[in-house]
Amino acid sequence: MPDLLGEAFERVQQEVDSAFDAFLPVPDDTRARLIEAMRYATIGGGKRVRPLLLVATAELFGVNRDAAINAGCAVEAIHAYSLIHDDLPCMDDDDLRHGKPTLHKAFDEAAAVLAGDCLHALAFDILTQADTSTDPFVRAELVATLARASGHDGMAGGQMMDIVSEEERYDLRQVTRLQQLKTGALLAASVEMGAILGRVPPEGRTHLRAYARDIGLAFQIADDLLDVEGDEEKAGKALRKDEIQGKQTFVTLMGREQARTQAEMLVDQAGRHLASYGEEARLLVDLAHFVVKRDH
Amino acid sequence: MPDLLGEAFERVQQEVDSAFDAFLPVPDDTRARLIEAMRYATIGGGKRVRPLLLVATAELFGVNRDAAINAGCAVEAIHAYSLIHDDLPCMDDDDLRHGKPTLHKAFDEAAAVLAGDCLHALAFDILTQADTSTDPFVRAELVATLARASGHDGMAGGQMMDIVSEEERYDLRQVTRLQQLKTGALLAASVEMGAILGRVPPEGRTHLRAYARDIGLAFQIADDLLDVEGDEEKAGKALRKDEIQGKQTFVTLMGREQARTQAEMLVDQAGRHLASYGEEARLLVDLAHFVVKRDH
Repeated sequence: MPDLLGEAFERVQQEVDSAFDAFLPVPDDTRARLIEAMRYATIGGGKRVRPLLLVATAELFGVNRDAAINAGCAVEAIHAYSLIHDDLPCMDDDDLRHGKPTLHKAFDEAAAVLAGDCLHALAFDILTQADTSTDPFVRAELVATLARASGHDGMAGGQMMDIVSEEERYDLRQVTRLQQLKTGALLAASVEMGAILGRVPPEGRTHLRAYARDIGLAFQIADDLLDVEGDEEKAGKALRKDEIQGKQTFVTLMGREQARTQAEMLVDQAGRHLASYGEEARLLVDLAHFVVKRDH
Repeated sequence: MPDLLGEAFERVQQEVDSAFDAFLPVPDDTRARLIEAMRYATIGGGKRVRPLLLVATAELFGVNRDAAINAGCAVEAIHAYSLIHDDLPCMDDDDLRHGKPTLHKAFDEAAAVLAGDCLHALAFDILTQADTSTDPFVRAELVATLARASGHDGMAGGQMMDIVSEEERYDLRQVTRLQQLKTGALLAASVEMGAILGRVPPEGRTHLRAYARDIGLAFQIADDLLDVEGDEEKAGKALRKDEIQGKQTFVTLMGREQARTQAEMLVDQAGRHLASYGEEARLLVDLAHFVVKRDH
């Protein structure tokens, strides 16, 4: 990992951690356990790829750093709630996440359902309350983008397609569609929200959207490769699950070699979409390369 | 039920049903089952107390009917998702809701978790996308109000307090606080959002807020009484649960007689808060009376 990117990750990780710490003071009543569960899921874990994507895009347009971090926390709150609910016994039934017990293991299932729901609400709370310096038009557009990307036409819709994928034997077109929703939508929303904060009109976001689409796909191909080749300890979660569940993935459909080539091609293409931004987009280009090179 | 109120309920019920029908077309892919589950939970069930509260408040200020119905659907989507998740085996474990099988019984648990999550996102999607005639300032304030009322400082926080109430033996002050969050926050948000759509500034909402606070409490006392005295068939859900779970409620803490007197006192007081609106507030006053007289 080049230094610029490593430092950027570290800075965003610290900022996101302290923002959640401030958003979630533990109250002196019987909700304390719920807030502790929300803190468990949001502070000190995760790579923060989505907040960094958002912040790095926002930086291109000189957006105030606090406003970008706030919006990044909103996306991360959605990501965190989706992991909590996906890990539940009735969903993927996972015991390990970010190298520690999943939320329903560390607390219980009821707390996991509720903490997920509360983080979901917190995302929209953050977008509309925490940063009063952002004008209402921008706030409304941020909410619209995040709500659309996380609901049945985005992340959660993709998760539903994923759940039925064991019986369905998807082809490459269907796996691509599934992943564009399940993983791609929220990554794309992160870039889009950075541009919204930068007051870039929709017609000015074409290159950024193309970049986001490419890294979204590359990210998922890399994930499928990691599931086959990765180290469980580094990943901090159970691997080899696709194979056990008999799911079609980019790797089963293309083979490892072609999958790797495809991911690298997408990353190069993603970088070229940002050519017009020149050296200013260095962080986003590095981030694209990180997405396929990461070992967790 | 007086005719004016009965007609108002019927009209809102029809409008909310057709709005959800339009929001949730069934797609021609493997998300179909998820969307069917969302439709199951939102179309043709429930009294629609919250949308009617919102619409009746908005009417006081001459708000466009479609904008009010849209916002009412957003509140109802939050209410519907909370019922789905509350009914899950790991939460209240209920089999019956609105006289039909709960969602995880009719579909399965994974679909119930996901459909709830998608309705949660849909609420904010509706507020920011469906009604583009509403100005962005209003849209942002609607989102802020609904997110705050449904998260850990509102409905979901109250649900957490409720879950631990079996061990905690709350006193009257604590039960009141719990219910203000669990039930009161979303009812209050319904009134507040009607006023926001009416462009009433916060300092002009004092009487409406006092009205909402009183009916929120009256609603819950009536619910506690129904749990003891109600007819399961009319209620369309399991009753006598508080007693079985050994929970402290308004009824166990005050006794039936005092609880009933208190609810009626609150309803009268709620009506008086609206005195300055005169005959125009008739629907809201009637709605307050309905809240304690309902048999389901």
